Amino acid sequence: MRIDIISAAPDLLKSPFNHSIIKRAKEKGLAEIHIHDLRSFGLGNYRQIDDTQFGGGAGMVLMIEPIANCIEQLQAERTYDEIIYMTPDAKTLTQSVSNTLSLKENILILTGHYKGVDQRIRDKYITREISIGDYVLTGGELAAAVLCDSIIRLIPGVIGDETSALTDSFQDNLLSPPVYTRPSDYKGMKVPDILLSGNFPKIEDWRSEQAYKRTQQIRPDLLDE
Amino acid sequence: MRIDIISAAPDLLKSPFNHSIIKRAKEKGLAEIHIHDLRSFGLGNYRQIDDTQFGGGAGMVLMIEPIANCIEQLQAERTYDEIIYMTPDAKTLTQSVSNTLSLKENILILTGHYKGVDQRIRDKYITREISIGDYVLTGGELAAAVLCDSIIRLIPGVIGDETSALTDSFQDNLLSPPVYTRPSDYKGMKVPDILLSGNFPKIEDWRSEQAYKRTQQIRPDLLDE
Repeated sequence: MRIDIISAAPDLLKSPFNHSIIKRAKEKGLAEIHIHDLRSFGLGNYRQIDDTQFGGGAGMVLMIEPIANCIEQLQAERTYDEIIYMTPDAKTLTQSVSNTLSLKENILILTGHYKGVDQRIRDKYITREISIGDYVLTGGELAAAVLCDSIIRLIPGVIGDETSALTDSFQDNLLSPPVYTRPSDYKGMKVPDILLSGNFPKIEDWRSEQAYKRTQQIRPDLLDE
Repeated sequence: MRIDIISAAPDLLKSPFNHSIIKRAKEKGLAEIHIHDLRSFGLGNYRQIDDTQFGGGAGMVLMIEPIANCIEQLQAERTYDEIIYMTPDAKTLTQSVSNTLSLKENILILTGHYKGVDQRIRDKYITREISIGDYVLTGGELAAAVLCDSIIRLIPGVIGDETSALTDSFQDNLLSPPVYTRPSDYKGMKVPDILLSGNFPKIEDWRSEQAYKRTQQIRPDLLDE
């Protein structure tokens, strides 16, 4: 998989993509990430990329022309399965969207900043708009990093133990059951006996029950889906 | 505001906290962020911080003792308003939670990794569990960065133009209306006339109508709240 990201603040993305799972995926040749500095497509001597909004109001808007030029240059090099715009006013990312995107070959991600991008960019180029949640961030960079992490870890071979990804929360619409590790008694706080029993079928039953209970208590909406 | 973050992968957090809004908030003295490497509280010569889970199953679990020691050392230095654990099996972050948290003095954030943390940590120390959305990430670091960004930008004085934060999506349960900037005609794609009219009361009406329409189309659930 190849992911291209267009950003007005590319430095923000450095450390998330040079550590942890994404780094490992890159080293194994399973994912390539290319970050494009929007400012290098900026207009004039000042490399302008944003301007005040028509109709008045606070906040700057990313201009159509630098983004259009950057997208069209990338499109001349390859075909993108999806051109995604990260924005809070979109459908919310879910595990099933991440599953779908993890099967794509080429993804282009545009990250907004300030008040967002000129609407005409969204109308003309964007094939999918994604919000990572109902809250506002300074820019789309962290959102893009979140999206990439959630996708890339699903590519077979990226996570050492594949069952680990399959038993995560949401893969079966249930939250995870509680987990415990050594010591079995920490200052009087004990691990549930069942987990120390060695009776694996019973342990599985207990875990399913706990997962269901926790989902019902914290996120009952997931059970309705 | 002071935010302490406990992480097993502190390098991941470097660039998000050294750029953009968070950097500016730090420079203005409006926010302090301290990152604590969990491994420096690890046990034994190998600085062990995780172990296999009781009851069997894939994935490692962060041990109780290193985290307990780290939290207790920090608690000895100051009182925390909230000790937050970032985890997918929790209530989802919303703008209203970010608003609430932006008024706190001291926040401690624990980021999970691998299969999560020993449940006893959650039972004993954590005052609030937050998920940033219904998808799984490799670790809680990006989630913590998202939470910090969403909180810190709300602290008065962090964003230059305060009205900019107040007219964001979600502050009034509506998505933002579309925005446009120069040029008014880009290769035949035109900005809506109303925005060029100079009739500001009418522009405001148009924006409210667009915000409502977009919310109804993309996120009708927000209108029910």
